[in-house]
Amino acid sequence: MINFTVGPVQSCDEIREIGGNQVPYFRTPEFSEVMKENEQLMLKFMKAPGNARAVFLTGSGTAAMEAAVINTLTEKDKALVVNGGSFGQRFVDLLELHHIPYTEVKPESGKGVQAWQLEPFEKQGYTAFLVNIHETSTGVLHDYRLIGDYCRRNNLFLIIDAISSFLADELSMSECHADVVLTGSQKALACPPGVSILALSERAVERIKDIPTKCMYLDLKDALKNAERGQTPFTPAVGVLLQINARLRQLERDGGEATEKERIHAVAQYFRKRIKGLPFEIVSESLSNAVTPLHPTTASAYDIFMVLKDEYGIWVCPNGGALKDSVFRVGHIGALTFADYDKLLNALKDMQRRGLI
Amino acid sequence: MINFTVGPVQSCDEIREIGGNQVPYFRTPEFSEVMKENEQLMLKFMKAPGNARAVFLTGSGTAAMEAAVINTLTEKDKALVVNGGSFGQRFVDLLELHHIPYTEVKPESGKGVQAWQLEPFEKQGYTAFLVNIHETSTGVLHDYRLIGDYCRRNNLFLIIDAISSFLADELSMSECHADVVLTGSQKALACPPGVSILALSERAVERIKDIPTKCMYLDLKDALKNAERGQTPFTPAVGVLLQINARLRQLERDGGEATEKERIHAVAQYFRKRIKGLPFEIVSESLSNAVTPLHPTTASAYDIFMVLKDEYGIWVCPNGGALKDSVFRVGHIGALTFADYDKLLNALKDMQRRGLI
Repeated sequence: MINFTVGPVQSCDEIREIGGNQVPYFRTPEFSEVMKENEQLMLKFMKAPGNARAVFLTGSGTAAMEAAVINTLTEKDKALVVNGGSFGQRFVDLLELHHIPYTEVKPESGKGVQAWQLEPFEKQGYTAFLVNIHETSTGVLHDYRLIGDYCRRNNLFLIIDAISSFLADELSMSECHADVVLTGSQKALACPPGVSILALSERAVERIKDIPTKCMYLDLKDALKNAERGQTPFTPAVGVLLQINARLRQLERDGGEATEKERIHAVAQYFRKRIKGLPFEIVSESLSNAVTPLHPTTASAYDIFMVLKDEYGIWVCPNGGALKDSVFRVGHIGALTFADYDKLLNALKDMQRRGLI
Repeated sequence: MINFTVGPVQSCDEIREIGGNQVPYFRTPEFSEVMKENEQLMLKFMKAPGNARAVFLTGSGTAAMEAAVINTLTEKDKALVVNGGSFGQRFVDLLELHHIPYTEVKPESGKGVQAWQLEPFEKQGYTAFLVNIHETSTGVLHDYRLIGDYCRRNNLFLIIDAISSFLADELSMSECHADVVLTGSQKALACPPGVSILALSERAVERIKDIPTKCMYLDLKDALKNAERGQTPFTPAVGVLLQINARLRQLERDGGEATEKERIHAVAQYFRKRIKGLPFEIVSESLSNAVTPLHPTTASAYDIFMVLKDEYGIWVCPNGGALKDSVFRVGHIGALTFADYDKLLNALKDMQRRGLI
């Protein structure tokens, strides 16, 4: 199978092979060194400010989203949240569940949030801002500089979900003064799923210290304290953390996050140029390098997903909910080559010949 | 390295090699089938009653402990909790954090909980009972039949942490009328860490339906709903779940949990018989097959752990906290052979010759 989904994505051979090793015991100085390096390299590639920290949770991206909400916000906050799809809705649901007052900002379909949409909320007592910088469900990338400037001007605590955007799109935690940036192991980090990562500004660390623990498993106070010695409070997904280490070292060796972003950009552009002539419309006007969201004009998106899987050995990424039949997505993160895209394009052209699309 | 810790433990080659494969996309009918089989086989090996369900969380055993507490208990409950070590204390901390009234039962050092210790709490309005059936930190196994009878007589909702006991010791969810039994991927299941599993009685499922969600990530309502179609609410550790599937099928093929328990029992007995003459005291009077807790009478337990690691390529399991220097543990779960124990015994004898113990 060739995997063009947005996660889990394909790992390169070096990372994949580590998964075949025995998982070592981890309450050791050796594993602590690995974890300290993981923290430093994550912060480097996030372009985090001085004194920032990073912690690793064993859990999905949602675990990191919930950890961010419950460890850095309280009922005394007043949050603005960009809700442009399933993952924006997840932030809304988390704010609702944890009784944090909020107002939703809904971008127009296929578009990033605009300055005029934020203006009405200036000087209205807001304290925090939450955004999925790339709303993975719709393939819309928001402007992190626009949001960063707005938050700085209004002194808002900024939480950025960069789950599918980290390493794929330009993002600088320092430049946009973000307080929390989170991502997962199975997106452009291209490791197996099981670990999510939060980078935390000094201001975030201070907030975390002051807010009472709501959930032991997602407690960032405990995670930060253990991370000082390169450990985690509970048994982590040790194997995935070793794969993350190898991958971060590989990125460092190969030119860092800028090189990886260029590589992902190149395969995304290659694919987007070659789908002209196929009965698809790109449904986002503000594309991330991570994914191309496509609306098929002649067939059901879910049917296309199933035929590609069952007859061509190819996974593209189906959408759920209301978009199930109208949108599917082609990912550009993970170990994918131009030759892989040629195979996908040939499969789609073959489906066109067969009258399936 | 040979790994005699209590987790992560060694995997057999078949399971290890699956870790070297690409992780597949999982929102597919194929992965749903795997998950449905995982649920059925887990319930079978737990000896769960009819209508029981099992869910898989991406997280450590603590994630499952906290999920059990917040999804099945409320402030209206009154819990008895056995606190015989670090993991008993963790249940206490969870009850405290989530405002669930409780009373601690503290077994004597090295002993399982006794009937006379429970008697004073009969007919006192208790509604729930929590126990780490094998307190991994001290190597004390409690009597699940004694506890089960007590809970049945008093109509207590019974939560059993069987993290390090599942597949290693005799345990029948049906026989002791347990409502929740939880375990993890990295103990006797002998897969990499990253997944914990909860088996839930019909009564537990009913409770879960009625209790408001406290944590989205650990919400069992959502997990149960998704499990009906063989899925999880959020991206799980897909790779580990595939390894669990292969391991459960392997157990089924090889005679089920009884055969595995016998195998673990045999290596435990082999080791225990051969340490006579070494300066160690077994500190538990109620041993699990999973681990042998040892107090070295002539040296620091932590020093022994470090020398075995650095000079003999062997991991035993150090203890933390107050027991750091006085107790280390030798595990018997995972893919370990008699020959592996011979190597450990030879290393210990060599340390004795060198005057290190």
